[in-house]
Amino acid sequence: MTGVGGGVTRFKAGDTVGVGYFVGSCRSCDSCGKGNENYCAGVVLTSNGVDHAHGGVPTKGGFSDVIVVNEHYVVRVPDGLALDRTAPLLCAGVTVYSPMMRHGLNEAGKHLGVVGLGGLGHVAVKFGKAFGMKVTVISTSPGKKQEAIDRLGADGFVVSKDAEEMKAAASSMDAIINTVSANVPLAPFMGLLKPNGKMIMVGLPTKALEIPPFDLIMGNKTLAGSCIGGMRDTQEMLDVAAKHGVTADIELVPADYVNTAMERLAKADVRYRFVIDIGNTLKNSE
Amino acid sequence: MTGVGGGVTRFKAGDTVGVGYFVGSCRSCDSCGKGNENYCAGVVLTSNGVDHAHGGVPTKGGFSDVIVVNEHYVVRVPDGLALDRTAPLLCAGVTVYSPMMRHGLNEAGKHLGVVGLGGLGHVAVKFGKAFGMKVTVISTSPGKKQEAIDRLGADGFVVSKDAEEMKAAASSMDAIINTVSANVPLAPFMGLLKPNGKMIMVGLPTKALEIPPFDLIMGNKTLAGSCIGGMRDTQEMLDVAAKHGVTADIELVPADYVNTAMERLAKADVRYRFVIDIGNTLKNSE
Repeated sequence: MTGVGGGVTRFKAGDTVGVGYFVGSCRSCDSCGKGNENYCAGVVLTSNGVDHAHGGVPTKGGFSDVIVVNEHYVVRVPDGLALDRTAPLLCAGVTVYSPMMRHGLNEAGKHLGVVGLGGLGHVAVKFGKAFGMKVTVISTSPGKKQEAIDRLGADGFVVSKDAEEMKAAASSMDAIINTVSANVPLAPFMGLLKPNGKMIMVGLPTKALEIPPFDLIMGNKTLAGSCIGGMRDTQEMLDVAAKHGVTADIELVPADYVNTAMERLAKADVRYRFVIDIGNTLKNSE
Repeated sequence: MTGVGGGVTRFKAGDTVGVGYFVGSCRSCDSCGKGNENYCAGVVLTSNGVDHAHGGVPTKGGFSDVIVVNEHYVVRVPDGLALDRTAPLLCAGVTVYSPMMRHGLNEAGKHLGVVGLGGLGHVAVKFGKAFGMKVTVISTSPGKKQEAIDRLGADGFVVSKDAEEMKAAASSMDAIINTVSANVPLAPFMGLLKPNGKMIMVGLPTKALEIPPFDLIMGNKTLAGSCIGGMRDTQEMLDVAAKHGVTADIELVPADYVNTAMERLAKADVRYRFVIDIGNTLKNSE
């Protein structure tokens, strides 16, 4: 933080801080009152949002060496967290952390399934292990098994296209974080849940989700959606991440690499997030 | 209760008791351990179930003047509850009460929607009002408005086929109990929920539920199923019903009326449950 305005009380120049996916909200609705600014109808996204407080100009995001943000939308980065590996936590991290807390998944011994091992999924595995959960990754790619278990610490791996493996894992999980945005049938994943199990969608498919009512009702199951998280959750997530050493796996790139990074993103060729080193490389790339 | 076996400790002859939708379960699985016997894979339904403990014979239900049941599956009927109006609570009552408690709907001031005003719905309205909630009935039948508001005490009524009324009620409800088993689109009802709202299915449609992911995820909404309730919930439900005077609206019929009752049920011609007066009429009908 390079400086603070006159009314700022929570921060001072020199503090290490972060800004996430949004930089404003109405502060008066029910969602804002409950700390769920992310669900406020007037939320101002950090990038390409509409800045109501400044004449409706579009917000320009964080690919910049300075940004002015209301202190309410700023979080403190605890000591010990590497900044580059922490940056994606402000989006991917809170996106999986927030529903895990809301739905009571932060309980040692519970069995968590994580569908999809990408930017969101690999952080979900890490938080699940930080909470002492048993974590199983469910993926279409058998090639990710070693990565999931050896490097990320998952306890199990199920190939979703393998009917035998899916059958062996049936009715075994307390909850699933589903990070996949592709339009794939949900029923087989619902079948992995125990009675009373919860499936939480953090990916965003384009087509309607089709849920077999018998399984949902006779098994007392829950399907829930979740989108990023509020400011209180975001700060709490960073504090928990610092305590347990949870950070994102990233590839740090210079500013002039962005076009290549976009091409590689389109091919899902990154483990698991690109982070642009604005501080050291933005000026040089101009 | 006419008599008890030697090992029975919770009841004695002369007690007023009830038996619900099931009379057995495994007593050793995770669901049984949590008091959710209703989700046990070995649950023994009271009627047309498979009685594992007695050689797999089918259970014969409660249309009888005597029935032998393990005390674990028997509940005490509190003083002051009329037996005929209480009987349906052992199914319809706990079916709506159990998810209301599990999902935290028992909070004064919260806004509850009840889709469908039948056997389940009219009891959901009564429990909602007992909890101090604002209750709105959502129905296809404008003719039920007076009944819902004047007699059952609902605060509002929305005709689901009326686009203007649905629009006026958009994003206004904290939770909805959906009692409808017909295959009707869920998306319009999901739109009635506030951000973080919960839709609980207690009806059982035959076709897959289609849920728009954008609304679910961007609104942090939950779709949950629920099926009757465990023994602990059933006893608690009766105790709450006695405290608040909640009973079902019924039509008491003699045993020899059952065939006519079945014909009328097929036409949904009952407000809201038939109850057969077994004690006074079964012997006469033989």
